[in-house]
Amino acid sequence: MIGMSSYAGVMESLMNSAEEQQPSSPLANSRSNKQESSESQKPNGVCGFVLVHAGAGYHSESKAKEYKHVCKRACQRAVDQLKAGALAVEAVAAALVELEDSPFTNAGMGSNLNLSGEIECDASIMDGKSLHYGAVGAIRGIKNPVLVANRLLSEAQKGKLSAGRIPPCFLVGRGAHDWAVSHGIPPCPSEKMATKFSLSAYKRNKRKMELAEKMDSGHNQTKKRRQSSENENGSGCLDTVGAVVVDLEGNVAAAVSSGGLAMKHAGRVGQAAHYGCGCWAENARNMNPYSTAVSTSGCGEHLIRTMLARECSAAVQSEDAHQALLEAMQNKFISSPFLASEDRVLGGVIVLRCCRCVENQPSQNIQGILVEFLWSHTTESMCVGYMSAQDSKAKTHISRLPPGTVPGQSLAIEGGVCRLMSVVE
Amino acid sequence: MIGMSSYAGVMESLMNSAEEQQPSSPLANSRSNKQESSESQKPNGVCGFVLVHAGAGYHSESKAKEYKHVCKRACQRAVDQLKAGALAVEAVAAALVELEDSPFTNAGMGSNLNLSGEIECDASIMDGKSLHYGAVGAIRGIKNPVLVANRLLSEAQKGKLSAGRIPPCFLVGRGAHDWAVSHGIPPCPSEKMATKFSLSAYKRNKRKMELAEKMDSGHNQTKKRRQSSENENGSGCLDTVGAVVVDLEGNVAAAVSSGGLAMKHAGRVGQAAHYGCGCWAENARNMNPYSTAVSTSGCGEHLIRTMLARECSAAVQSEDAHQALLEAMQNKFISSPFLASEDRVLGGVIVLRCCRCVENQPSQNIQGILVEFLWSHTTESMCVGYMSAQDSKAKTHISRLPPGTVPGQSLAIEGGVCRLMSVVE
Repeated sequence: MIGMSSYAGVMESLMNSAEEQQPSSPLANSRSNKQESSESQKPNGVCGFVLVHAGAGYHSESKAKEYKHVCKRACQRAVDQLKAGALAVEAVAAALVELEDSPFTNAGMGSNLNLSGEIECDASIMDGKSLHYGAVGAIRGIKNPVLVANRLLSEAQKGKLSAGRIPPCFLVGRGAHDWAVSHGIPPCPSEKMATKFSLSAYKRNKRKMELAEKMDSGHNQTKKRRQSSENENGSGCLDTVGAVVVDLEGNVAAAVSSGGLAMKHAGRVGQAAHYGCGCWAENARNMNPYSTAVSTSGCGEHLIRTMLARECSAAVQSEDAHQALLEAMQNKFISSPFLASEDRVLGGVIVLRCCRCVENQPSQNIQGILVEFLWSHTTESMCVGYMSAQDSKAKTHISRLPPGTVPGQSLAIEGGVCRLMSVVE
Repeated sequence: MIGMSSYAGVMESLMNSAEEQQPSSPLANSRSNKQESSESQKPNGVCGFVLVHAGAGYHSESKAKEYKHVCKRACQRAVDQLKAGALAVEAVAAALVELEDSPFTNAGMGSNLNLSGEIECDASIMDGKSLHYGAVGAIRGIKNPVLVANRLLSEAQKGKLSAGRIPPCFLVGRGAHDWAVSHGIPPCPSEKMATKFSLSAYKRNKRKMELAEKMDSGHNQTKKRRQSSENENGSGCLDTVGAVVVDLEGNVAAAVSSGGLAMKHAGRVGQAAHYGCGCWAENARNMNPYSTAVSTSGCGEHLIRTMLARECSAAVQSEDAHQALLEAMQNKFISSPFLASEDRVLGGVIVLRCCRCVENQPSQNIQGILVEFLWSHTTESMCVGYMSAQDSKAKTHISRLPPGTVPGQSLAIEGGVCRLMSVVE
């Protein structure tokens, strides 16, 4: 139960620092106290909300400013779109482009290099309104893989291709690259996508690998492999990026993009391209009272085998989103039977949960969307940013596991509530 | 409720043809009457059971004999493995190799050609015991893609790679091919994988496409696309192959392999490589009283977006497997909100559900495994075969929708029960 105590620790500090406000909507009767963003006090039109992440992994203090800055810019890009009347799916793609373009994140520009010294990216996007989905895996030479995923989604929404062929929702490798270019997405020379930082990390990792393999030779290698617990992924950077958005109509969307694990085998596809694993978005309908959107980050294989995005989305349909996410991260991730053989289960999620709400006041009828936003991670840290289109002030935060707790065995969970309210005449 | 009435029709004919036997085990109190295979009457050691499919699509009467024959051979291969003491995951891979090697199925040899005239295959395998999973997508020049998926699974079970790197569970394209070859799986020249049949189908499809595109030009193409309802996938061949196995220890495993839709875009990955969509296997544990294994076939995009393998696996944890599968196919597939925009929802599943059972008779204690096996499809037909290692007699069947019902809107569901019993001294 280390996970539970670490959670309690984080929540305590949060509760101490956050203003404790009583929810004014009957729909907001959550048992947990959360950060309440300021725009809930000044209803002036429903415009939407964005929550982004720059990865669950390890964010050094020295680069904290950069990570926060890119999250802020990504929020701004999404909000610009929302203000221009874009739907959630377009706004989430815009946020992702900003995150991919940063050389500090492991997505698009500056992605991790694979074993062969190449950059191969995964990305996916899901529209909670149409429930359509697009994904690319192991794609080379495209600066913004999320734009290819988004284009696949929008092409699929148009219906069948000539001769009744069903349009693809998932393309990989060379075929994905060629499809992108034939749909007007410009190619980008691979050497332009590598950065000084990614190239030096590649050289460092390669030396580390060669040294490890030298040490292994002569020993029982299989045994060595099983016993290995120290790994670069445990302490290194897993800066997959992602975002979740709710638009002015209450539609949700989610997206994720990643350069994948450093020194991965060519052709390896991680959770960012995997349906149900990298991102998930579902508008409220029949059985689901809430619209939900999730984006994940961390060790792709762990996130795939636990289908973490979809699991978290389903979990937060229960009354208390905070408690539900905590239990999902504990039971469906850290203690998942699917990862029973793993010593460290590494990942993080951002979650958006929305429902319509009404406040009846003596003179006015105020209605809008109640947005609960959460993040949780088992990695050392996770960098997030969020912004409402109503006040356009981005907040950024590097969430860290409480000191002394073990990454991969403990978790942190935080979140807040935002009400996007407008007066109905 | 067309689906329901078509189901009733199929079940009636089944009930008439099947011997109606009362379940002798308290665990077998299913409300539906099913085919009961003969080995339930002669307990002589628990050896396992295999159920295979040669696709949900359209199986012409003229080739029925061939389809049945390859299913029979695949069953025999799995049973040979089980008798030699292999675990379920090895037996299921052996069945798949036989199915892939047939030029009549759309997997491995004789796969559909893509738009560029190339063969690119998807395959995956899941072990219900370890819950490990391996998959390859859009792989070229490998005769048996399932062997690469199986090798990925077994390599991942060994634990981390050098320098603590996490082994991949999903590889695509050129990287997947190179990994396979470096792990001793021989490459196969692409031209050897194409057959006379697949090449002539490619030429036919290409002409059809060019004609359709010519007709479209000058019209509002987008509108045309949306209105298109006649498609080759509705009436054509979707012969993805798959198998589900339970071994003598009661472990389950599932696998699937596919050449994908004819005339797909290069790099398109279908359900056969998608976690949770192409196959699923989970041994019984804590909350799950039954071990379940599922393999799917049909239109990859439909099977991906509904995560049909995992949905069906979860569904049949409820008491009446037959009713649960019927409802899952109706509510989570045909009427799925994820496929609301599709006019025809095309797919099929084979399902294995197992639990331990005991029969207390006056002089003997008989115990073993109660195996319920089911198939269901919304396509015109589905070809299946099954075999128990106890009697080694394969049964094959081409299941068809009742006459007059509409593929993609109706379903057929059938199944049986097999008891693998042994006397305990």
